[in-house]
Amino acid sequence: MSLAALQVPVQRNDAGLAAVMPKLSELFGDRFQTSQAIREQHGHTTSWLPNQLPDGVVFALSTDDVASAVRLCHEHRVPIIPFGTGSSLEGHVNAPGGGISVDLSQMNQIVAVHPEDLDCVVQAGVTRKQLNDYIRDTGLFFPIDPGADASLGGMAATRASGTNAVRYGTMKDAVLALTVVMPDGSVIKTGGRAKKSSAGYDLTRLMVGSEGTLGIITELTLKLFGVPEAVSAAICHYPDVASACNTVINAIQCGIPVARIELLDELQVKAVNSYSKLSLKEAPTLLVEFHGSESSVKEQVELFASISEEFGGSDFEWATRPEDRTRLWAARHDAYWAGQSLQPGKRSLSTDVCVPISRLADCVVATQEDIKTTGLTAPIVGHVGDGNFHVLVLADDTDADELERVEAFIERLNYRAIEMGGTCTGEHGVGQGKMKYMAREHGPALAVMASIKRSLDPLNIMNPGKIVRIDE
Amino acid sequence: MSLAALQVPVQRNDAGLAAVMPKLSELFGDRFQTSQAIREQHGHTTSWLPNQLPDGVVFALSTDDVASAVRLCHEHRVPIIPFGTGSSLEGHVNAPGGGISVDLSQMNQIVAVHPEDLDCVVQAGVTRKQLNDYIRDTGLFFPIDPGADASLGGMAATRASGTNAVRYGTMKDAVLALTVVMPDGSVIKTGGRAKKSSAGYDLTRLMVGSEGTLGIITELTLKLFGVPEAVSAAICHYPDVASACNTVINAIQCGIPVARIELLDELQVKAVNSYSKLSLKEAPTLLVEFHGSESSVKEQVELFASISEEFGGSDFEWATRPEDRTRLWAARHDAYWAGQSLQPGKRSLSTDVCVPISRLADCVVATQEDIKTTGLTAPIVGHVGDGNFHVLVLADDTDADELERVEAFIERLNYRAIEMGGTCTGEHGVGQGKMKYMAREHGPALAVMASIKRSLDPLNIMNPGKIVRIDE
Repeated sequence: MSLAALQVPVQRNDAGLAAVMPKLSELFGDRFQTSQAIREQHGHTTSWLPNQLPDGVVFALSTDDVASAVRLCHEHRVPIIPFGTGSSLEGHVNAPGGGISVDLSQMNQIVAVHPEDLDCVVQAGVTRKQLNDYIRDTGLFFPIDPGADASLGGMAATRASGTNAVRYGTMKDAVLALTVVMPDGSVIKTGGRAKKSSAGYDLTRLMVGSEGTLGIITELTLKLFGVPEAVSAAICHYPDVASACNTVINAIQCGIPVARIELLDELQVKAVNSYSKLSLKEAPTLLVEFHGSESSVKEQVELFASISEEFGGSDFEWATRPEDRTRLWAARHDAYWAGQSLQPGKRSLSTDVCVPISRLADCVVATQEDIKTTGLTAPIVGHVGDGNFHVLVLADDTDADELERVEAFIERLNYRAIEMGGTCTGEHGVGQGKMKYMAREHGPALAVMASIKRSLDPLNIMNPGKIVRIDE
Repeated sequence: MSLAALQVPVQRNDAGLAAVMPKLSELFGDRFQTSQAIREQHGHTTSWLPNQLPDGVVFALSTDDVASAVRLCHEHRVPIIPFGTGSSLEGHVNAPGGGISVDLSQMNQIVAVHPEDLDCVVQAGVTRKQLNDYIRDTGLFFPIDPGADASLGGMAATRASGTNAVRYGTMKDAVLALTVVMPDGSVIKTGGRAKKSSAGYDLTRLMVGSEGTLGIITELTLKLFGVPEAVSAAICHYPDVASACNTVINAIQCGIPVARIELLDELQVKAVNSYSKLSLKEAPTLLVEFHGSESSVKEQVELFASISEEFGGSDFEWATRPEDRTRLWAARHDAYWAGQSLQPGKRSLSTDVCVPISRLADCVVATQEDIKTTGLTAPIVGHVGDGNFHVLVLADDTDADELERVEAFIERLNYRAIEMGGTCTGEHGVGQGKMKYMAREHGPALAVMASIKRSLDPLNIMNPGKIVRIDE
C-alpha cells in the first residue's frame, strides 16, 4: 500500500481552468499567482501525504474577494481549496484535481473586540497568537491552543482544540458565528452575538469542522475568557503510561477543573530533552496546569497531587513563575519537531485518535505494545484530559517494508479507537488521511454527510476529495 | 392579523393517509390510536397557537418502532410529527397538514450510565427528572433544566437550555451523540462517546435544535456533571430592572462562574407571591445560585454581593439549606403558571428572545416601556446570565383589538432583539410561532437551511411547516 492510495482522485477540469485563470488574473492582478514556488508552498503542509499542487493562488483581502473568486470558479466548475497557514496535518490543502487555492492569510484584521460581551470579531487569517497579543490589555484571552500558530479560520474549519480544551472546550464551543462564502459565491452569516439561540439549524456548528468542503469561512465571532487570577503548572513522572493515564482518568472523574493535562511517553520525553535542551526524567510524564482564583488553584493542586501520589507519581515540580511555565509549555509545543528530530532523515506521520476517558489507559498501553511489536519509532503525546492522544510515527520513505508496517499500524490504531467507542480523529480532522475510516466510524451517517455535501456543493468544487466522497 | 396567520399551511395527503392508517393499525395494534381525545392531546401543547390535530398517534417503544412508522409514512408521503411531553411553546407538535404523531413518551428506558466517563445513554422519552432521580446515587447530575419536566429527546430537538445554562451550557453542549431515524426510515448514530471528535460534519449539532424537521431523535448520549460540593442560593431586590440587569452584566463580565441567575420583574414577583403563597418584596428581583467547593462558593458570593450593592441591591437573603433553595426555585419554575394566574380567563402567549449581555438592560427596559405604552399585562422573567428573557403576554381571545396589539408587541420585541445582535429565540425554538422572524434574523442563511431540509427530507414529511419552508 502506498500513501498516495489514501488520496481520493478528483477529476481535473482543464477547460474550466483555462477559462478561469485569465479572469482571476484580470480581477486580482498581482494577487493571483501561478509560480511553481507559490503553488508548491500552498500544496505543502506539515502533512505526511504526498503534495498535490493547485494551479494558482488567490491572495484574498476581503470576503468580497473570496466571493468573487468562488463565483468565477463556480461558473467554470473549478475546484477551490481554502488556505490559512498550512499547518494542518491530514492533507487538507492538497489539490487532488488541481484548482485554485484561496489564501486567507492577508485577511488578518481584528474587526471588533467587545470586552463587555466577552467576544470579538476577526477575519479568518488572524492567528491565535496575533489575537491574544492584540487583546492582552483587556484582561481577556482566547484559550484554544492547538500548538501551531494556526489561523483562526483554519482552526474553525478543522474543529481544532489542543491543550486547553479540557477546560475551555474546542472550536465547536468557541465560535459564536461565522461569515461563510458558499460554493455558489453567496455570503451567509451563521449567527449573531447572543450567547445562545434556538432559531433554526445550527449552521455555525455545521461549518465548524467542515474543512472547507461546504464553504469558505471568512470571518469569525469568537468567545473570549477572563485571564485567570492564578495559574499553576506542574510536571510529574510515573512508573508507566498506565499509571499516568489512570491519574488523568481519576482527576477528570473527580471533577477537577484542570485547564491542561498533557501526557508525554518516555520516548517523547527523550526527544524533548534532546531537542529543547532539557533534562527531564525519561519516564511517562504529565504536564498539568490549573486556572482559577488563588484559593481554587490551591484546592485543585492539592487534590491532583493526592491522586497522582496514589498512582506512583513522583518528582512533582511546580512552576508558578510565568517564565518557568513558558519553558515547560514551549517544550510541549515543540513535541512535534522534537519527535521528528529522533531520526532526522525520516518522514514523520502524525496521527491522532480520541477515546472515552475510561478507555484511555487501555488504548495508550495497547498502542505502545503495538509500536514495540511492529518495531517502530513512534513517540506518544496527548491532550489526555479529553481522551485524545497523538502518535508521531517515523518512517523511511525509501523503505517500502517499513512504510507498509507504518500504514498497517496507523490503521490498527484508528480501528482500536473506534472499537472503544472513540473516534479516528479528536482534533486533526479528516482531510485525505482519515477518509478511509469514516465508513467504519459513522456507518449510515456517512450517507447523510454526503447528502449535505451534495445539496450545498452540487458541483463538488469546494475542497473536493476531503472528508466524504460526494457519491458516498 | 390572527394567530392562525402564523401557521404555514401544509397540503394534506388524504389518499396517503387512507392508505397508511390501516397499515399502522395492523403493525401497532393498540399502540396506534385515532380517538379524538388522544389526537387532541397530541395537537395540544402549552403553545398559544391554535391546535392542529394529527390523524393518528403511534406509541413507539423502540427505535425500530419509530423506523417502521416512518418508513410507512415515507412510502405514502404522510407527515410525521414527533411528540415528547408536549411542553413546547411555539406550536412544535401541531399537525398543519394532518399526519401521524409519533409519541416517544413510552421510550423511557435509561440504557446505560457510565459514571467513569461522566456520560449516560437514554431513550428519547426519558424526562430530565427521571434521569436525575435514577442517577442520584452516582454523585452525578444532568444540569439542563428548562423548567418543565420535558423529555430529553424533546429538549435536544428544541435545543433547550434553562436556568443552569449560564454555567453548564445548553443541549447543544450536553449531547455527545444521538440515534436518529431519518425521513426515509434509515437509522443513524451521529457520534460515539469520545469527548471530542473532528471526524466529519457535526450531525449531532445539526440534529439538536432541528425540531423533528430532519429526523426523529430516539436515543441520546448525554454528558453528566458531578454534584457540586457546595451550593448557595440568594434572592436580592433592586430599585429598577436596569439595576438588576447591570448587576448581571457585571457579574458575567467579572467571570463569576454563577450557576443560575434569574430575573423576575416587579409584575412577575407579584404573580409569584400570589400563586406560590410567598411574600417577596414586589420589586425587580434576582435569584442567583452558586456551585463549587465551599471556598469557591464563598468567593463567588462575596464578589457577587459587592457588585450587587453597587447597583442598589437590597434585602439580600441567602439560602444554603436545600429546602429553602427548593422553595425559591419552585417559585421560579412556577413563573409561567403564576403569570397566567394574573388574569385567569385570558390566553397566555409566552415568547422569548436573547441578546448579547451588554444589551440586556437596554432590551429589557425598552420592552417594559413598550408593554406599558401598549397597555398590556406581561410579566418578564429570564435566564439573564445568557442575555435570555421571556415575556408572558396575557390576551383576551375574544378581544380582536387586544390580540392585534399583542401580536404587534411580540413582533417589535423580536425585531428589537435581532437589531441588537441577538436572536428571536434563545431557547423556545422556532416551531410555527417564530418562522416569520427567520428571514430577518438569518438573511441568505435561511436558504441554506432550506437546502439542507430539501436534501434530507425531499418529500417534506418530517414535521412540515416548522422552522423553514422547504421552498425558501
